[in-house]
Amino acid sequence: MPYGDAMSSRARTEERRAEIVRAALEVIAERGYRGASMAAIAERVGLTQQGLLHYFPTKDALLVAVLKERDQWDAVPDSQWRLDLLGSLVEYNAMRPGIVQTFSALLGESVTEGHPTREFFTERYVRVRATMAEALRAAYGERLPSGLSPERAAPLLVAVMDGLQYQWLLDPESVDMPGAFRDFLALLGEADAS
Amino acid sequence: MPYGDAMSSRARTEERRAEIVRAALEVIAERGYRGASMAAIAERVGLTQQGLLHYFPTKDALLVAVLKERDQWDAVPDSQWRLDLLGSLVEYNAMRPGIVQTFSALLGESVTEGHPTREFFTERYVRVRATMAEALRAAYGERLPSGLSPERAAPLLVAVMDGLQYQWLLDPESVDMPGAFRDFLALLGEADAS
Repeated sequence: MPYGDAMSSRARTEERRAEIVRAALEVIAERGYRGASMAAIAERVGLTQQGLLHYFPTKDALLVAVLKERDQWDAVPDSQWRLDLLGSLVEYNAMRPGIVQTFSALLGESVTEGHPTREFFTERYVRVRATMAEALRAAYGERLPSGLSPERAAPLLVAVMDGLQYQWLLDPESVDMPGAFRDFLALLGEADAS
Repeated sequence: MPYGDAMSSRARTEERRAEIVRAALEVIAERGYRGASMAAIAERVGLTQQGLLHYFPTKDALLVAVLKERDQWDAVPDSQWRLDLLGSLVEYNAMRPGIVQTFSALLGESVTEGHPTREFFTERYVRVRATMAEALRAAYGERLPSGLSPERAAPLLVAVMDGLQYQWLLDPESVDMPGAFRDFLALLGEADAS
């Protein structure tokens, strides 16, 4: 097979995979994580279920691809993350429960032994904590008003985002997720009076 | 059947269920959430798998019973929760990854549609936020040093506990869970300098 053809075949595969990921995201937004069956996603892109398995051998593999895609959309060059953008991201998340549900459900599964999403989430946390530490450093320098270093505050920032999502998904009326997150950002910015 | 016999039969069933829950907890501590199969738990209490299903028809039902049992052990009369006890609870949790893993994995599943653990976690959050608000009120009165009310700070406290568990379970070397939680308690207690 000529080199050019091999390349374009690979490009076609990538394009098809991207199309499947977009379809999966639509189906998740409409029906939620559990309702987004492989059959429903296959139908949306005009593939048989067998055809879909050629691109993504398991539902988990497809869902991880969806989360990676979300991370890419949400990405801001690391040096340009600002804390107020984070508040906006949480507000945006409050308008897309399907993808937040997918993230939260897969995060839960990832802590079990040998789960296929474990590596994705472990690496993601290392990266996200580092990005958040940089955003905190850009806002406050080497020490936050509370006295914490950016590296010590970053895991708390990430924990609040993830933890609030569970409370909000289970009981959206009881938890103002964006408001609570802004409360936390305000806490981080307050000075130590001791 | 005489009334007395009916009562003691119910008492025996309750005793058997309690025994199964303790066995499940042991197996989870040894093998983790996924490794704790119904077969392994049945063997531990000397039941057939069919016999076990008589007491707990699904693994999820049994795992929810394990989490309820944990909540009972950890319970402190609501009026006696103190913030420093919370720090100790997080330290204690860091020594029992099996049960934290079970909690975190089931919490993840609970946000999917119609999942059997959904009601348990939704109700638990309502209760736990109220308890935390009371503990914050006991420590700080109607307004925390930061200016937040106890009711606005409570969801953040709960979110940090839950969110840190995921980071810690995935990468225990990278996250000092009890230390990070104490950092957060210190943040909550700091005065607003504005």
